[in-house]
Amino acid sequence: MTLDLRASSIDLTRSICDIRSVSGDERVLADEIQAALAGYDHLHVVRDGDCIVARTELGRDRRVIIAGHIDTVPVNDNLPTVFETIDAVDYLTGRGTVDMKAGVAVQLKLAAELVDPAVDITWMWYDNEEVASERNGLGRLARNHPELFAGDFAVLGEPTAGGVEGGCNGTLRVDVTTRGRRAHSARPWAGANAIHAAADVLGALARYQPREVEVDGLVYRESLNAVMISGGVAKNVIPDECVVHVNYRFAPSRSGDEAVQHVREVFDGFDVTVADLAPGARPGLDTPIAREFVAAVGGPVGPKYGWTDVARFSAMGVPAVNYGPGDPIKAHADDERVALDEITACEAGLRAWLRP
Amino acid sequence: MTLDLRASSIDLTRSICDIRSVSGDERVLADEIQAALAGYDHLHVVRDGDCIVARTELGRDRRVIIAGHIDTVPVNDNLPTVFETIDAVDYLTGRGTVDMKAGVAVQLKLAAELVDPAVDITWMWYDNEEVASERNGLGRLARNHPELFAGDFAVLGEPTAGGVEGGCNGTLRVDVTTRGRRAHSARPWAGANAIHAAADVLGALARYQPREVEVDGLVYRESLNAVMISGGVAKNVIPDECVVHVNYRFAPSRSGDEAVQHVREVFDGFDVTVADLAPGARPGLDTPIAREFVAAVGGPVGPKYGWTDVARFSAMGVPAVNYGPGDPIKAHADDERVALDEITACEAGLRAWLRP
Repeated sequence: MTLDLRASSIDLTRSICDIRSVSGDERVLADEIQAALAGYDHLHVVRDGDCIVARTELGRDRRVIIAGHIDTVPVNDNLPTVFETIDAVDYLTGRGTVDMKAGVAVQLKLAAELVDPAVDITWMWYDNEEVASERNGLGRLARNHPELFAGDFAVLGEPTAGGVEGGCNGTLRVDVTTRGRRAHSARPWAGANAIHAAADVLGALARYQPREVEVDGLVYRESLNAVMISGGVAKNVIPDECVVHVNYRFAPSRSGDEAVQHVREVFDGFDVTVADLAPGARPGLDTPIAREFVAAVGGPVGPKYGWTDVARFSAMGVPAVNYGPGDPIKAHADDERVALDEITACEAGLRAWLRP
Repeated sequence: MTLDLRASSIDLTRSICDIRSVSGDERVLADEIQAALAGYDHLHVVRDGDCIVARTELGRDRRVIIAGHIDTVPVNDNLPTVFETIDAVDYLTGRGTVDMKAGVAVQLKLAAELVDPAVDITWMWYDNEEVASERNGLGRLARNHPELFAGDFAVLGEPTAGGVEGGCNGTLRVDVTTRGRRAHSARPWAGANAIHAAADVLGALARYQPREVEVDGLVYRESLNAVMISGGVAKNVIPDECVVHVNYRFAPSRSGDEAVQHVREVFDGFDVTVADLAPGARPGLDTPIAREFVAAVGGPVGPKYGWTDVARFSAMGVPAVNYGPGDPIKAHADDERVALDEITACEAGLRAWLRP
């Protein structure tokens, strides 16, 4: 079978979903995409591993990047796809329909169709988004081919139920560690209890009032949460160490360094070690091309709270937003399903923005 | 080799230590003890597994139980024993010298020697004290032969550096659990953080003022400590459960039920589940026979903070104390060693109490 990029975006979504491509196993789908694009002379195709880039080179004064990942989380008895109607809404149900092959299908269809778009377009379909960051295909592409990331604006087709989600919060994880001295629990006065010493760490978390921060017109909601806690060596030993693993989600107006500084202030007097830091991305909705995009696709505009690959574009100087079909609440769900209307609406929205 | 119960208590300690008897592997030593006792007609011997009981049956109006365990923690290149002199103190060094074969040697020597003691004596040497409670040989003997536990007073030869340690604290372990609701940590407001909810649990522990309680003239120091804490499901998920494992050591004047009630009050409003409960033992030093014992052996009298098998005697209605040679700080240590003077002092103390 070869993918037919002139099929409807709904049928194309189905075809793509039925080619399994769990992270690390995208080769077959990447080959299919590459083969399908070969017939379109207006696209210059570059392949890097299982990442396919297709560019128009029309000499337009502006260039946009439109990207989507082709991998999925593991299949759980939810392929091949089926069409379902639930409460009078028509859906395509199965792994990848929401996250994010419907978005990829719309992109592929428009890549083939738009031979003379209003702006130059760099289409990117990449591997390994659903796994550890170091395996991310978009990150690898940025290392191997940074020149391909030239652009004025980027759209990532992650599911947003057809709305526009601008930028994303940054995320910082730290270990807050308290220390004590071991002793037999029959004689605790000979030791010092590190778990008791963590009372003030949890107290600071429980009392913490997170900010809401407006960035480029969107309100980002911050948060500070313990996600893990562990301490203790045995049931009859006074513990000498307790580690609270804390996640700070911070507005994109705050730098990574500022986020670390803030967390150190919250836990002043405690041992704070940075475990992981990914700065956020400003929504980038204050440029003319972004305003044209929002006007063309319509729908609600809001902030993205979770960290997504838009931050990779932002870090390379390209403002980026998330825009794609599918309710994000169904991403990774066993009953993952996309409303057919959202696929065609997204197709129409992007076409309205990109057509000459 | 057969044990010679007429040897000095020091030589007998050495002989017993050099017969390895790590918990679960006491058979050879139990056989040796049984064989050595066979020549003494004033003793009626009962064997239960690797537990040996030897009783005088002289029709005295009072009976005391004197007991010791014959197992040790694992050997760590510290057998056979050696004599050492450190800072002008003579020691026998090696696994089991402190915990508690010196005590067993003194007991065996006196069992053989005292053919006409002032009181009837039930000697008990038992297996599997250093491992899980359900394997404990004294517990098994109590289930199989409760009649052997008739007595007015019991002495357990655990190392006390020659002092008398009366009774023991009880110990209660509970799980204090907080619950929340999972959510992605990018949208924590959709969930409820169970680790944050544990702030008040740790706060209560940090503020807790433990009691000091006088029981039968001895002051018991209580304590309440978190020994383990765990919570969290993944680094990007708001945790829905946090469990604090708490150990309450309580004076023997408080019953197990009262201890549970007290802990429930401390953690009022939280889910408290009892994991393990072992009531303490009153020192039992207010009876005439106990006062005679203390007067005979001399030395300091204090409370025992850790739970020991004296509580098994106490639970069967027999007041019990710990009294034996060896510094408890050296129990289980790789350089385990007993001062020779403590062995002979303990022998003299028990003889002074028991002789006609």
